[in-house]
Amino acid sequence: MPGSERIVRLQEVGPRDGLQNEPRALSPEARAKLVELLVDAGLDRIQIGSFVNPRKVPQMAGTDKLWRLLTHRAGIRYSALVLNRKGLDVALSEGIPHVEIYVSASETHSLKNSGASVQEALEDAFEMIRVALDTKTGVTAGVMCAFGCFYEGPVPVNKVVEMVRALDHDESLEIGLADTPGLAEPEGIRRVLEAVKEIVSVERLAVHLHDTRGFGMANLRTALDMGVRGFDTAIGGLGGCPFIPGARGNISTEQTVRFLESLDFHTGVNLAKLEQIREDLARMLGRPS
Amino acid sequence: MPGSERIVRLQEVGPRDGLQNEPRALSPEARAKLVELLVDAGLDRIQIGSFVNPRKVPQMAGTDKLWRLLTHRAGIRYSALVLNRKGLDVALSEGIPHVEIYVSASETHSLKNSGASVQEALEDAFEMIRVALDTKTGVTAGVMCAFGCFYEGPVPVNKVVEMVRALDHDESLEIGLADTPGLAEPEGIRRVLEAVKEIVSVERLAVHLHDTRGFGMANLRTALDMGVRGFDTAIGGLGGCPFIPGARGNISTEQTVRFLESLDFHTGVNLAKLEQIREDLARMLGRPS
Repeated sequence: MPGSERIVRLQEVGPRDGLQNEPRALSPEARAKLVELLVDAGLDRIQIGSFVNPRKVPQMAGTDKLWRLLTHRAGIRYSALVLNRKGLDVALSEGIPHVEIYVSASETHSLKNSGASVQEALEDAFEMIRVALDTKTGVTAGVMCAFGCFYEGPVPVNKVVEMVRALDHDESLEIGLADTPGLAEPEGIRRVLEAVKEIVSVERLAVHLHDTRGFGMANLRTALDMGVRGFDTAIGGLGGCPFIPGARGNISTEQTVRFLESLDFHTGVNLAKLEQIREDLARMLGRPS
Repeated sequence: MPGSERIVRLQEVGPRDGLQNEPRALSPEARAKLVELLVDAGLDRIQIGSFVNPRKVPQMAGTDKLWRLLTHRAGIRYSALVLNRKGLDVALSEGIPHVEIYVSASETHSLKNSGASVQEALEDAFEMIRVALDTKTGVTAGVMCAFGCFYEGPVPVNKVVEMVRALDHDESLEIGLADTPGLAEPEGIRRVLEAVKEIVSVERLAVHLHDTRGFGMANLRTALDMGVRGFDTAIGGLGGCPFIPGARGNISTEQTVRFLESLDFHTGVNLAKLEQIREDLARMLGRPS
């Protein structure tokens, strides 16, 4: 058994962040199949979808149905992204065991993504976190655009720290820091993590990276070197953000697993199975493999 | 002025490693134009092409003509890759000021790439280096597949060290270490550099990376952290190797400049000009920008 400091916890976000950016929407049945295969490949944290307005993000319609189609296996953290109270209520009523609640550090992105100012979104999020915890639902609370914004450029580190402080309801929370537009670089990662680690223990942190500029693995390495062991990845490097032009895919699960293995970190993921899923998925989405 | 330890020397290899892998061959005139534009953008080391059999690599036909079309500007290191004595003789007779002579660390790749065993290629290379130095031509001598081989897998660090020792004719040489198939990962980079630095001062090293698996910037970072300040890059991330299936592009010049700037390193390259060249080049090659 590898020591715990050599274990990295990957959360697969392909079924959410990946699929929501694909022109071809998959049925809840196909998405459920994908989730099952990913769990078979050893991914034990998986974001199955989001509860959002299906008119705005049709690719995520029927996440409730998807959830009901799944075998709910022990030891797997199934989660869903929720953007507002309505989405949270549906997720809770469906019995989703873990929800993710993110607020953007950028006013412009916050308005585009959620229709609310950062301050309003923070207040809503805090209330949502309270409601979720009251029902014994697991929570990841996070900051989008924590390392910079496509619209506004650099985001002050202090702002990210203050947002984390405002969201960090209690020690049971995982705290997510997302490079939503894929603009982070290693020094930015280092500065934000250094500051956030002063108020949240590193074991509770998860970092969400995109590979927009090809800096994904270098950023991951910096976060790893600073003690972070939780990362979001997406099979095939799918993903982006519907509200950020040019935002490219998440760091890919395959690439990340290979990179981590080369550094003697363990993920529990079966690469051969993952490659097979990636090929099948590319076919389903009408994309080149 | 930045301190010398903050200055990174990029060699643009797009006109050689990039173009040789494109299905559409450009004329010597178009290639010369590209070289001039790249020099205008601040790249002061530039691999203009290679002297190889035009039947094997038609994209590199007419490198002699290309060279004659160029304004030979002071302070610019124009170089060409030469693969054998015949190519070297042409390069020297044309007055190419700097030649690059690489030997593969992999027997299989060496046979495919040059038709010679590693030992034969080393002996030929040593003789070529001697001839080039005798005519006061600058030389980069290097090892291809220094961090692993598509055909043979890992390459022993000792083998790379022995090859560098065999090639390192004198202190005027630059020593290149190339991840020809793009299989390197940071730990491999670290191990090889650690060993090679024991016999060659780090100021003489240059590292050539590909981004086949998305590890390019993470590998660059590791080499930077170990003191390397010379790197090959290609505009637009073009490149590969005609004799290695699946080998993808070089680390891109734009991406590398951005990455280095974020770490407070200086390259002297004008990014806006580079972006314009990339767009024009994509059009010429019939590729999406």
